[in-house]
Amino acid sequence: MKVAIIMGSKSDYPVVEKAEKMLDSFGVEYETRIISAHRTPKQAEAFAAGAEEAGFGCIIAAAGKAAHLAGVLAATTPLPVIGLPMKSSTMDGLDSLLSVVQMPKGVPVATVAIDGAENAAILAVQILSAAEPKLRQAVKDFKKKQEEDIIALDREFNENKNK
Amino acid sequence: MKVAIIMGSKSDYPVVEKAEKMLDSFGVEYETRIISAHRTPKQAEAFAAGAEEAGFGCIIAAAGKAAHLAGVLAATTPLPVIGLPMKSSTMDGLDSLLSVVQMPKGVPVATVAIDGAENAAILAVQILSAAEPKLRQAVKDFKKKQEEDIIALDREFNENKNK
Amino acid sequence: MKVAIIMGSKSDYPVVEKAEKMLDSFGVEYETRIISAHRTPKQAEAFAAGAEEAGFGCIIAAAGKAAHLAGVLAATTPLPVIGLPMKSSTMDGLDSLLSVVQMPKGVPVATVAIDGAENAAILAVQILSAAEPKLRQAVKDFKKKQEEDIIALDREFNENKNK
Amino acid sequence: MKVAIIMGSKSDYPVVEKAEKMLDSFGVEYETRIISAHRTPKQAEAFAAGAEEAGFGCIIAAAGKAAHLAGVLAATTPLPVIGLPMKSSTMDGLDSLLSVVQMPKGVPVATVAIDGAENAAILAVQILSAAEPKLRQAVKDFKKKQEEDIIALDREFNENKNK
Amino acid sequence: MKVAIIMGSKSDYPVVEKAEKMLDSFGVEYETRIISAHRTPKQAEAFAAGAEEAGFGCIIAAAGKAAHLAGVLAATTPLPVIGLPMKSSTMDGLDSLLSVVQMPKGVPVATVAIDGAENAAILAVQILSAAEPKLRQAVKDFKKKQEEDIIALDREFNENKNK
Amino acid sequence: MKVAIIMGSKSDYPVVEKAEKMLDSFGVEYETRIISAHRTPKQAEAFAAGAEEAGFGCIIAAAGKAAHLAGVLAATTPLPVIGLPMKSSTMDGLDSLLSVVQMPKGVPVATVAIDGAENAAILAVQILSAAEPKLRQAVKDFKKKQEEDIIALDREFNENKNK
Amino acid sequence: MKVAIIMGSKSDYPVVEKAEKMLDSFGVEYETRIISAHRTPKQAEAFAAGAEEAGFGCIIAAAGKAAHLAGVLAATTPLPVIGLPMKSSTMDGLDSLLSVVQMPKGVPVATVAIDGAENAAILAVQILSAAEPKLRQAVKDFKKKQEEDIIALDREFNENKNK
Amino acid sequence: MKVAIIMGSKSDYPVVEKAEKMLDSFGVEYETRIISAHRTPKQAEAFAAGAEEAGFGCIIAAAGKAAHLAGVLAATTPLPVIGLPMKSSTMDGLDSLLSVVQMPKGVPVATVAIDGAENAAILAVQILSAAEPKLRQAVKDFKKKQEEDIIALDREFNENKNK
Repeated sequence: MKVAIIMGSKSDYPVVEKAEKMLDSFGVEYETRIISAHRTPKQAEAFAAGAEEAGFGCIIAAAGKAAHLAGVLAATTPLPVIGLPMKSSTMDGLDSLLSVVQMPKGVPVATVAIDGAENAAILAVQILSAAEPKLRQAVKDFKKKQEEDIIALDREFNENKNK
Repeated sequence: MKVAIIMGSKSDYPVVEKAEKMLDSFGVEYETRIISAHRTPKQAEAFAAGAEEAGFGCIIAAAGKAAHLAGVLAATTPLPVIGLPMKSSTMDGLDSLLSVVQMPKGVPVATVAIDGAENAAILAVQILSAAEPKLRQAVKDFKKKQEEDIIALDREFNENKNK
Repeated sequence: MKVAIIMGSKSDYPVVEKAEKMLDSFGVEYETRIISAHRTPKQAEAFAAGAEEAGFGCIIAAAGKAAHLAGVLAATTPLPVIGLPMKSSTMDGLDSLLSVVQMPKGVPVATVAIDGAENAAILAVQILSAAEPKLRQAVKDFKKKQEEDIIALDREFNENKNK
Repeated sequence: MKVAIIMGSKSDYPVVEKAEKMLDSFGVEYETRIISAHRTPKQAEAFAAGAEEAGFGCIIAAAGKAAHLAGVLAATTPLPVIGLPMKSSTMDGLDSLLSVVQMPKGVPVATVAIDGAENAAILAVQILSAAEPKLRQAVKDFKKKQEEDIIALDREFNENKNK
Repeated sequence: MKVAIIMGSKSDYPVVEKAEKMLDSFGVEYETRIISAHRTPKQAEAFAAGAEEAGFGCIIAAAGKAAHLAGVLAATTPLPVIGLPMKSSTMDGLDSLLSVVQMPKGVPVATVAIDGAENAAILAVQILSAAEPKLRQAVKDFKKKQEEDIIALDREFNENKNK
Repeated sequence: MKVAIIMGSKSDYPVVEKAEKMLDSFGVEYETRIISAHRTPKQAEAFAAGAEEAGFGCIIAAAGKAAHLAGVLAATTPLPVIGLPMKSSTMDGLDSLLSVVQMPKGVPVATVAIDGAENAAILAVQILSAAEPKLRQAVKDFKKKQEEDIIALDREFNENKNK
Repeated sequence: MKVAIIMGSKSDYPVVEKAEKMLDSFGVEYETRIISAHRTPKQAEAFAAGAEEAGFGCIIAAAGKAAHLAGVLAATTPLPVIGLPMKSSTMDGLDSLLSVVQMPKGVPVATVAIDGAENAAILAVQILSAAEPKLRQAVKDFKKKQEEDIIALDREFNENKNK
Repeated sequence: MKVAIIMGSKSDYPVVEKAEKMLDSFGVEYETRIISAHRTPKQAEAFAAGAEEAGFGCIIAAAGKAAHLAGVLAATTPLPVIGLPMKSSTMDGLDSLLSVVQMPKGVPVATVAIDGAENAAILAVQILSAAEPKLRQAVKDFKKKQEEDIIALDREFNENKNK
């Protein structure tokens, strides 16, 4: 199963690209699309309606300001939708966060931190891993490596200090 | 031309009803519908696509929390959409307000105050009045009467005080 | 009918200019004025009182901080007033937004996003289009073109990726 | 010199009344008026224009939501204007506070706490006391008494505890 | 696979119970536990470490204020963790929301709305459905029924009006 | 009577200097001091206790973050205290604003906008003008000139446009 | 060593009492006083100046709104000061929290949660325990008991469910 | 007794270093470690469990975003934990502050200002000084010096002005 990454505007790509790289590191396939909930509503609806059949296991939706993209996709698709609120030029991302996370009863969006593209990708991998045991192992390895990296950083930091 | 009032949930009706009463007082026709951007996305899209032809001159959209309804309708209809953010059980309506007002470039929503149903209706009348001169006059009369009411209230308040 | 654009300070012009350009693209006439609710209250009152007779169909009011301009104009004119809250040097525009949108019962202001000058202009066109059928068509064309642009952007983005 | 108390809505009176009582306790004369910046703009302008000549030394303006009243009065009168932001049904008074305090350069409003009616009155007395030495003394006595009350409360609280 | 529901305090149960009922309606098994990130950190760590082997497919973590529970579990388990921020007695749930959603790079928490217990459950079902096709169908049926309910509500509302 | 300007930190001077210049333009005497409520509490208390006798008519207190300076001075002096909240490196000045304006009953602080140094000075002049008629006239002249400047700016802006 | 509990207003006592009870449970002596930073500044200064000599090991300061009490005491005493921000009638305690915690460099206040009276007391005990080993043990016992209580609650909750 | 400084990420060091320098100036020993609540949870637990025996008197925990580090350490150690919320790239540190300070009943974190590293260090010294009289004296000297510095700054500022 692959992951769909939808961004509401091309200007979101520098952040979204971090999600792509994280998925690459897990060897998970993905497709990235520019679809706007407000400017291309038919495309959004059509994508969401066909996403499961197209072989996607979950959808990452990145948008800013009154960020409806994740909610609009979640309204139509039965797949889990991960909402990635983007920091925009005003309001420091609080508008995006609330527009993504405060979904009404019946239509959840799995929201990650503002600009938290890597976490959106890791969450996607965790979701896919329900059906793919080798991804579950990959998540464990990732966590293990992450732990070792911090431990090494801590050791190195203190060695440098005590020189 | 008539006004469409769309609410995202039946529980919004006690507030929305104030918009209906205000439109009644102006003698403006309206239809009120329960359509959810998240739970009935196809109905929302269909309504927005047909609203102009159905004789509506503008749309009032009332919704709370991650309030996408106004934006979703505005994505499809060429009519002006008035967003009415509803106070919900948490966040004191700030989530609704930001989800309604912070629309990206290209798709405006004419947002009024949180729970400001009367103002949504008056704004609808002002918009229709571009094409209907007698509504323009009705707005002037409304403003005149409103002014007189406050002046009377002020006089009465001071008369009572000085008794 | 033409659109009035009022800005509270000349420093708002770089943002306000985007509204002018958008109106230009629709072929809608406008006049831009610098009038301050606080520093030239008589001018504000006089402008609002004469706006309808001067041939304006709606007013865009751009102001920041304790942004009273839109409300002050709406207090006097029967025309619909579009409030454009400006991001200022502190508070990230939240003060402007709340000062513009949270109008009391009886005097609505049609508020758009913080610094959302293009949307203020599009909303103005939508409002005028109630009386001018060719503007209604222009709004539809604008939405169509906007949709096509995103679709093209998406196609191009994916073609570049797959090279 | 007397104090003008202007409230934007009669519903503000339960809070505003506390300002009246505080002024009573200082023996300072006042007049209370219901004048709305948005619904009776001409009355607001006229009051502000005539306030100095009418013998007022300062103006307390109480309003909620997009609270423009204080700013609108300050735009016209040379008198110091005290802004009293009212807590309204949404936003916990933050909208009122920002609409009152964040005034642009050139037109200050002396803002007190949300619903801080007593403090608005005390500040008015402090302002008048620049010209009336016996009010200066009254402020000192008030502060002295306030101090003694807390000291007595503290003593009593501890005596009750140790019984 | 079953779902683990962990709540940080027994007082969270009235909200958490709605997640249980939603899972019941999908026929998904769950276990509900009271484990506090701060008061029983060892239990939290032990639960997270053993959750996969114990047959859980994902974890819902409900907590309020400085809501660390979801993050603490996500630090240890490879399973997807759904964060359910609880409204507490102050701050209207904003503290809980930010503490749950703003996770640093490497450890995502799939956050739903404040007090959004039903959505936490639906998201859990969506996640499990990656591996269980009949749950995927159940999600589709749920969405279908939800849509029909709103349509019926809308019809009924308008029939009652027109009587 | 002269004005005291107290700043909590020397780093506040670039903003505070604008208040000095505004007072200069009114020909009002002032003294500027660096006194910290937290680092030199005795100096703050001593200054406040002696301010009236030293010939000050009011005090401007500029401070940031947990900005107690205005409140601490107001606790001791009977003079009106103008609070000038400074934008600091975090929280965009909201912490300063709330710390200055939300004073408890009995001890008002006349708060102006975040970084609103000019307005603090104008308010000081308005307060002094209660006792000095020529300052009252100066305030009127200032307002008149301010109005003329905007009118000229507006005229010039439109002349340039129409060239 | 004993703990001083200072509250800015008698109305804070229902919350402050929980701190007293927690200190009672640890067998730690305390004195509770009503001293206001704004209404009894001399008492505040005198208390802070004499607190160490009077045998106090730390000070808990409870106050709301523009909550300067903790900072004012910390300005004078060398003892650690624990700030307890109180929820007030507006702003949900955010004003209190920021006024207490955002202290400038040089004068820290150890801030606990809004209305977190029990935690203020526990923190006081932890601070005293640096010099009193039996209090260190008491803290460990408290944490142990707290853990056991949650474990018992969890067990009981699940036994009741499975009946 | 020495102080432990734990930071959640190496990128926190430029701020954390100011705490080290402050501790250096008091001659207080410290150890600085990089331990992440989320990426190295076992290290965090192990450090907290052994901190008292390792000779630490208190712990400073610096973290940003959903800043759980201080709370996670406080869950296990009986030592007082000082929480230092770090400003991160979004939300201006509000997320960090609320995640650190809003701890539930039973597990306090002594929170200082956002990025307030020096104050974290001074608070640590104040806490240690309960058991070390010479540190108590050092705190008094620090406060004395700080006061003298401001007084000197004030004098110098006014001398320069009057030249």
